[in-house]
Order: sequence, then C-alpha cells, then structure tokens
Amino acid sequence: MEKLIFISNDDGHAAGGVNQLAEMMRQYGDVFVVAPDSGRSGASMSISSHSPVRNTLIRHEESTDTKGSLTVWACSGTPNDCTKMAFEVLLPRRPDLVLGGINHGENCAVNAHYSGTMSIALEGCIKMVPSIAFSSGKTAEDADFSYMQPYICRIVENVLVNGLPTGVCLNVNIPDVNEVKGIKICHMGMGDWHEEWQERDHPRGGKYYWIAGYYAPYDPSDTGSDTWAYEHGYAAITPLQLDMTAKSFVDKAREQFEI
Amino acid sequence: MEKLIFISNDDGHAAGGVNQLAEMMRQYGDVFVVAPDSGRSGASMSISSHSPVRNTLIRHEESTDTKGSLTVWACSGTPNDCTKMAFEVLLPRRPDLVLGGINHGENCAVNAHYSGTMSIALEGCIKMVPSIAFSSGKTAEDADFSYMQPYICRIVENVLVNGLPTGVCLNVNIPDVNEVKGIKICHMGMGDWHEEWQERDHPRGGKYYWIAGYYAPYDPSDTGSDTWAYEHGYAAITPLQLDMTAKSFVDKAREQFEI
Repeated sequence: MEKLIFISNDDGHAAGGVNQLAEMMRQYGDVFVVAPDSGRSGASMSISSHSPVRNTLIRHEESTDTKGSLTVWACSGTPNDCTKMAFEVLLPRRPDLVLGGINHGENCAVNAHYSGTMSIALEGCIKMVPSIAFSSGKTAEDADFSYMQPYICRIVENVLVNGLPTGVCLNVNIPDVNEVKGIKICHMGMGDWHEEWQERDHPRGGKYYWIAGYYAPYDPSDTGSDTWAYEHGYAAITPLQLDMTAKSFVDKAREQFEI
Repeated sequence: MEKLIFISNDDGHAAGGVNQLAEMMRQYGDVFVVAPDSGRSGASMSISSHSPVRNTLIRHEESTDTKGSLTVWACSGTPNDCTKMAFEVLLPRRPDLVLGGINHGENCAVNAHYSGTMSIALEGCIKMVPSIAFSSGKTAEDADFSYMQPYICRIVENVLVNGLPTGVCLNVNIPDVNEVKGIKICHMGMGDWHEEWQERDHPRGGKYYWIAGYYAPYDPSDTGSDTWAYEHGYAAITPLQLDMTAKSFVDKAREQFEI
C-alpha cells in the first residue's frame, strides 16, 4: 500500500501554501487534502459545535509513475473539523502522516496556541499519527514556498521512517530569508500581544474592533526559543506535547489544594 | 483598592454558570464579566481574525457593604476575544484573578484543548494573572451550581493569597454528584473522540454533518488522570502550563533533525 499523507491548513483549500505542500508530498505517496473553504486564521483547536459542516470535492488527480494521487476537499468547518472529518468520513484509509500548512505566516512561541495550522498537528497527535505543522515567514497570497522544500522533505522523510513519540508533534517555522542557516530544535517561546484591538467607527454609529497588534517575547534574549531561532534565520522545530500538565507544580498543588 | 476578578465563559453572558460564579465572587471584591453574546462551546483559543468584534454593556450593579460591584458586558467574539478585549479595552484596572466558567459541562483531559472556558484561563496565564477554569458535570441551562461553591471558594481564596506559578493555570472539573469526595490534583488524561460526525440530509439535497460522538480515554485505568478522579466523584484540579514543549524529546530530536 502506498503511503497516505493527510494535509489541512487554516488559510483555506485555495491557498498557495497547502497546494505547494501537497505537490511536494506526492513523491512520497497519495496525498489527501481536506481544508477549510476559506481562511480561518487564529482558529486554534476550535470545532463547529453550533453550526453544521459540509464538504465539497474540489479535485482529484490519479497517481502517475512518479507521483501519488491528489484529492482535495473543501470543508465549511474549522481546521480541526477538517482533520476530524477526514479521519472519520473522507479518508480512504488511516494516514501515515498528518501535516498542517504551509501556513502563510509564522506560528512561533505561544502563538501555536492560537494557530489553526498547529491544531491540525495536535489533532493528528490525538489520533496517534505522526504530525507536523509547517509555517513560513512568507505571508503573500502568491508566495513561492519552494525555498522550504529541502527542509520540509528532510523532516518528512525522517518522520516517515522514524515516527514521533506518541503525544508529540512538531511545530516547524521557517523564516523568509535568502538562505536558511540550518535547523534548530527549540522550546516554545513565551510572550504576549500588545495593542491588540483597533477601534473603528461604524457608518451607522457605534464602535467595533479588529484584532491586530504585535507580539513581543517576554525575554528577547531567550536563545533557546523558537522565536529567537526563527528571527536569527534558522528553521525552528519545536516539539510540542498534547499533555499540558504542569508537572513541576503537582507536588506543591497537592499541599495547597487537596482535601 | 478592592480586588478585581475578571470572569468570562463560553456558554454566553446569559448562561447560569457565569452569573452564579459572578455572584459567588462578589464577596472577594469587584467582579467584571465580559462574555460571548451567545454560546461558543468548543471555541478553544480561537480569535476573530476574520470578523469585527462589538461589545454591549448588559448591566452594572454598584458595590454594597457586603459585596463588590458587578459589571457585565456581552462581546460578539470568541471567549478568547472576550479576555483580550477585557484586558485592553474594558477592564477599569488590571485584575487580580481571571476565571473561566462555570462551564455547563466538564472539560477534563485533552478536551481542555477544545475548551473555550479553558482558553480564558490560558489567556489569563499569557497575561501573567493567576487564572482558573471551572467546569461542572451539570449541563442543564437552569442548573444550580451552588453545590460547587465550597470547592470554588476554597480554591479561589487560596489562589488570591498564594498566587500560581507564572505560566501555570488550573483546570477544575467538578462532577454532578450528591457528595463531592474531595479535591484531587491530577494530570491531563489522554484519549480521543469516536463517532464524531452525525450525517443529516438537507431538505434541498446534499449531506451535512453535526459534530457529536463520545470521548473515551486511551487507558481507563489511568488513576492519576483528571478523567478518573472526575468519574470517581472527586473535584479534579489539573494544573496546566502554557509551555507545551516536549522536553523529553528535545535531545532525541536534536540528533534526528538538526543540521
């Protein structure tokens, strides 16, 4: 049986990133995309608990001597809905690999928590399939992500052979630079957003707000963080785990709270 | 200055849980609620990157000799938008405590990843304020959550005095039982959902799906998990940390991927 690679994203099925990633992956086997019908940036691991979800087949290309088949579905739900829908309803068999991306824009540091791209890898992780999220410093709709191909292929080939520990997935962020300096394994950087809301006047009265602002690390000199590696020209791989238990606080918490 | 307690939820500002929690908290100081204008279950840490966000003042009650003031705003965005909006636009000063809930329904185990209630505590954590999410096994719209009050107050009083480590928040799940057996400090249980989609026929043709199904732990005998404690009648406190780095995989990942 051919390898099967499942891909989704949060920029929508028509985005350049997901289509370029799908083409890169066809050398490894069949590629199956279920992606949102439009952009869902910042969707995190949200699910459509209050609205019905529909799927539309966008296209199917048969395999050739040199590449696997390609199937693309659009889904009206969130990125996480796409992954859940794929596993239970749309995929022809259990995939060997789950990929999110390529996201138009980075998802370093705590921003992985907000990221729909990351949610795909985390959901793949819950479903116990090796999972990776790829994000790029390039944000343009017509961005060319081919500069990422050597790094993406190195990581994918390794994971297809060696797998990943259960409950662990990779958050990969590759900056928009002429020459990527190398690959660094990092920890999740910590920081916060500032000036998060832009106020506007509605033409018929009243105020409304757009979410915006800028991210700043708590500690810009945290050289082991993904933000630092990314900002210094490295492809940053942050291994993330599903289990968020604050193990270092458990003993203290027992003293403090248990009855 | 009075203590200021910020509360949001994912069931909306009109839900019983958030209003009962707000009343419980007025003994400690001023209470400020910014909650979604309707239900947003399963919103995770999503933000409204594609739609504008509006706020509406629902009510304000002045403080009395025995309790702090109460202010309630409805926000058209996600639970995480509510927290971000509160901190930057609506709150009169930096809060001493951030609370999510009381959620109508539990948020144990990996389901914390999907939870809008949990997102409030995680965002509070990003903003470096001690933060707690409260969820109940009761799901009815008219549920009476007063049975939770002794546990909620014990936890809140402790956190108001001792704080929480930076980057750590609490996920508290209290089952719907006649007598809560005690408080247990737990780790995040691991598991997955099954039969996640229910198919329906649209009256004008075509299929659509509702997300549904049931959650099952990978290992039901994991007695240290929040799911186990909750299902055995305990109030389960799971300390969660923002930093999802899979530290145990970092060295191996260096060998495997770095160039």
